Amino acid sequence: MMHGYTLDINCDLGESYGAYRNMMKSDEAILPLITSANIACGFHAGDPATMRLTVERAMKHQVAIGAHPGLPDLQGFGRRTMEITAREAYDMVVYQIGALEAFVRANGGRLHHVKPHGALYNMAAADIKLAEAIAEAVYQVQPELYLYGLAGSELIMAANRIGVRGVSEVFADRTYRSDGRLTPRSQDGALIEQPEAALAQVLRMVKYDKVITLDGAEVPIQADTVCIHGDGEHALTFAQTIREMLEAEGVDVTAYQAD
Amino acid sequence: MMHGYTLDINCDLGESYGAYRNMMKSDEAILPLITSANIACGFHAGDPATMRLTVERAMKHQVAIGAHPGLPDLQGFGRRTMEITAREAYDMVVYQIGALEAFVRANGGRLHHVKPHGALYNMAAADIKLAEAIAEAVYQVQPELYLYGLAGSELIMAANRIGVRGVSEVFADRTYRSDGRLTPRSQDGALIEQPEAALAQVLRMVKYDKVITLDGAEVPIQADTVCIHGDGEHALTFAQTIREMLEAEGVDVTAYQAD
Amino acid sequence: MMHGYTLDINCDLGESYGAYRNMMKSDEAILPLITSANIACGFHAGDPATMRLTVERAMKHQVAIGAHPGLPDLQGFGRRTMEITAREAYDMVVYQIGALEAFVRANGGRLHHVKPHGALYNMAAADIKLAEAIAEAVYQVQPELYLYGLAGSELIMAANRIGVRGVSEVFADRTYRSDGRLTPRSQDGALIEQPEAALAQVLRMVKYDKVITLDGAEVPIQADTVCIHGDGEHALTFAQTIREMLEAEGVDVTAYQAD
Amino acid sequence: MMHGYTLDINCDLGESYGAYRNMMKSDEAILPLITSANIACGFHAGDPATMRLTVERAMKHQVAIGAHPGLPDLQGFGRRTMEITAREAYDMVVYQIGALEAFVRANGGRLHHVKPHGALYNMAAADIKLAEAIAEAVYQVQPELYLYGLAGSELIMAANRIGVRGVSEVFADRTYRSDGRLTPRSQDGALIEQPEAALAQVLRMVKYDKVITLDGAEVPIQADTVCIHGDGEHALTFAQTIREMLEAEGVDVTAYQAD
Repeated sequence: MMHGYTLDINCDLGESYGAYRNMMKSDEAILPLITSANIACGFHAGDPATMRLTVERAMKHQVAIGAHPGLPDLQGFGRRTMEITAREAYDMVVYQIGALEAFVRANGGRLHHVKPHGALYNMAAADIKLAEAIAEAVYQVQPELYLYGLAGSELIMAANRIGVRGVSEVFADRTYRSDGRLTPRSQDGALIEQPEAALAQVLRMVKYDKVITLDGAEVPIQADTVCIHGDGEHALTFAQTIREMLEAEGVDVTAYQAD
Repeated sequence: MMHGYTLDINCDLGESYGAYRNMMKSDEAILPLITSANIACGFHAGDPATMRLTVERAMKHQVAIGAHPGLPDLQGFGRRTMEITAREAYDMVVYQIGALEAFVRANGGRLHHVKPHGALYNMAAADIKLAEAIAEAVYQVQPELYLYGLAGSELIMAANRIGVRGVSEVFADRTYRSDGRLTPRSQDGALIEQPEAALAQVLRMVKYDKVITLDGAEVPIQADTVCIHGDGEHALTFAQTIREMLEAEGVDVTAYQAD
Repeated sequence: MMHGYTLDINCDLGESYGAYRNMMKSDEAILPLITSANIACGFHAGDPATMRLTVERAMKHQVAIGAHPGLPDLQGFGRRTMEITAREAYDMVVYQIGALEAFVRANGGRLHHVKPHGALYNMAAADIKLAEAIAEAVYQVQPELYLYGLAGSELIMAANRIGVRGVSEVFADRTYRSDGRLTPRSQDGALIEQPEAALAQVLRMVKYDKVITLDGAEVPIQADTVCIHGDGEHALTFAQTIREMLEAEGVDVTAYQAD
Repeated sequence: MMHGYTLDINCDLGESYGAYRNMMKSDEAILPLITSANIACGFHAGDPATMRLTVERAMKHQVAIGAHPGLPDLQGFGRRTMEITAREAYDMVVYQIGALEAFVRANGGRLHHVKPHGALYNMAAADIKLAEAIAEAVYQVQPELYLYGLAGSELIMAANRIGVRGVSEVFADRTYRSDGRLTPRSQDGALIEQPEAALAQVLRMVKYDKVITLDGAEVPIQADTVCIHGDGEHALTFAQTIREMLEAEGVDVTAYQAD
């Protein structure tokens, strides 16, 4: 972002299902700390009741609401890569955006963005056809929606080609390679364990549009939104810390808005 | 309807799933004969690909499109009564309307109505709380949507109380009881086997707002739309016959529109 | 039971699903305290991985293993009554027993019993046709399996008619009516809140085959197994207390075995 | 096979689901022509009712019954590759074998074999870890079960290493490459269109343990069972022709049995 610094903090919410309401509690706690929420739409997690409740809560906290479509794999939580066609990707994204948007509308709100979940996110980052199908789905349903994707990925490029505003997502606790991609989790050094290092990385990305890679190089990166976790032991503390640090550094922490 | 006679002919479409595309062929054949289509939304039948295809086809034939939400029971095709709460009914209807509407919007169309499917339809006809929850769901998502329900049922009454326009559905091939309800399928005489008798019943309902019950009484009935089947051996022939008969009798066969 | 007092303590386990492993922790803690485990089979909860893990754990603790088949309703956790046919009940029980038994066999164990879950349990308690279909399913798959059901219910009677050994289940924390049935949860006084009262009720049932009803009468009841909860704040403490109390009173706490 | 020629003819059956009974009719017609049936187990297709019906039919025709486990992908009919772990493959195969076997046992029969379906079949043909996990699953549940897999594939090799009898499957209407693998469907010449050529290929495989590859070479192949289709316009005619041809050529058409 150009004039002044702004950053969106997004988090995946509503990933409960049926009787499994275990994530509801952490959702409640994280909401005051984030500026946009990606809400599961029933394929990898989420059911109609969870979606309604999560939309209501996000609206109460004035957090921007995004659809978080995933692969049709409840058992695998949408984390298992599936060989789907571009057509199938298009169809499942249209479906899930619509389902979530109905709850937003029923609550008098407006859907803000779409962010693919898990394996679909990763597939869309690397596969140009899937990326285009997803961007096309967003565009066809509502061209004003923002499309969140991995900074520098095929999804961001496809979004911008097709006419949807791509929003570049960065990670605080993941290291980057010299090609600007994330170090795969399977490799050593993929995770940033020290909170201070994670904070420093985010700040550098926001202020200088740069990231220092795992092997010490400095590469350009666009940072529109940072993804944080809503559950886990330290998630809440980290979320609080990153938000305070950003505000102390003069960064305007706010839901993403195009200039 | 008051000035001149009009009748909507509706039919359930898109009830395929995954590899089971068997109903696709009959869908194609019935489309030129009907004026509104109720499209399955993924709970009792229908998947994203089927929904997209069916929406495209319906639009090509200028048939009004409705969401056809059902119970989450793919194995039972949404025909098994489930003891759900009013809240659950609300949530599943909001979800399914949204999912279907996204495909309609992506195709440049407008959703016209909502008609609950199978057991949900029957439950909503008799249970005031479920009826109100469903009408409320429609109202919250989009108050202009028409809500199709059994003529004289709780659903129609709830719709009108809540501010959604209820559209009274009648059946050509089912007999009625003196309380205006359908004779249950489990009873003798529930079905009208003779096409001529079915046609005569529809005509009487449209022209005189009356139906002759199984025990010979004449009771008032509102007939805004008649439901026909899209599959089965004689479905197509019957659809053609009823349409021709209605037009020959001066009935304007057209998608339902409030005055 | 006749000579000496024996009682089985059973608990529902393996009710996690996919990424929702929240119940896994309480399962681990409750296992040393119970004598038989009812393991979810994938319809209302449970997935193949959870089933394998739970079977392994139960075997490690030498807890008798039962299949815990439920309605095909993951979203509703099998708690919503569904109008299924006796044929459907038979089929879903055969399927789920087989699925669980394969894990037991793969671990070198033997399946001990079957206990229907949730709404299916309640439906089978009251509906003679469903009860017979379920007993028939158990009998056809393996006639030596015990069939756990509500004491005095249609399921127990059907089991014994068909040739499967019915095992009468009682509840520590529920009150009974004078017809020997549980007071419905929707009524006042359905739950026994005081642990001491719950313990006393169980002891009376085991030692004297009697229960004092909500309105003060004393009615006969067969107590072969008592159901305890595996999760919730006080579940573990209560389980420990009931086990210690029973052993102190000379009751042999052991998995159910016919004489 | 050594003394005299024998061949098993297998076919996938029971691939209906819920209201989608469209494959039931072709199943009935193909049964007299085949010697073993692979019955869907509920993950990619098949539901408890379909499984019971199909088992009953197969037993009536004295056709050997196999479990046909697939990926948990009803929408994609188990045809979409999914990145599952070996553990997940093991678990889903144990589960599905058990579910089907219960119906076989309830009908007084014995399960004969296991054949993975669709993408799982293809993945197991090429990935040694998945192949071993599947063979291990079969072995743990019942080591006498035969494991059907692509001739020459990792699955056959894993089966034999682990102690399960691998049964080599060949295809009549697919061409082979010089490495003994099938020509991928995406390539030209993958399919054998002429029935005569397909018949000749099968006969050569059975009698001489050889196949002529797409580029004209002759490579060795083990042919224990040939897979035929149960649906499609020409399936029945082809099945009849291949059976008659094999019998006329002195091949004993019978369910696979180890010597």
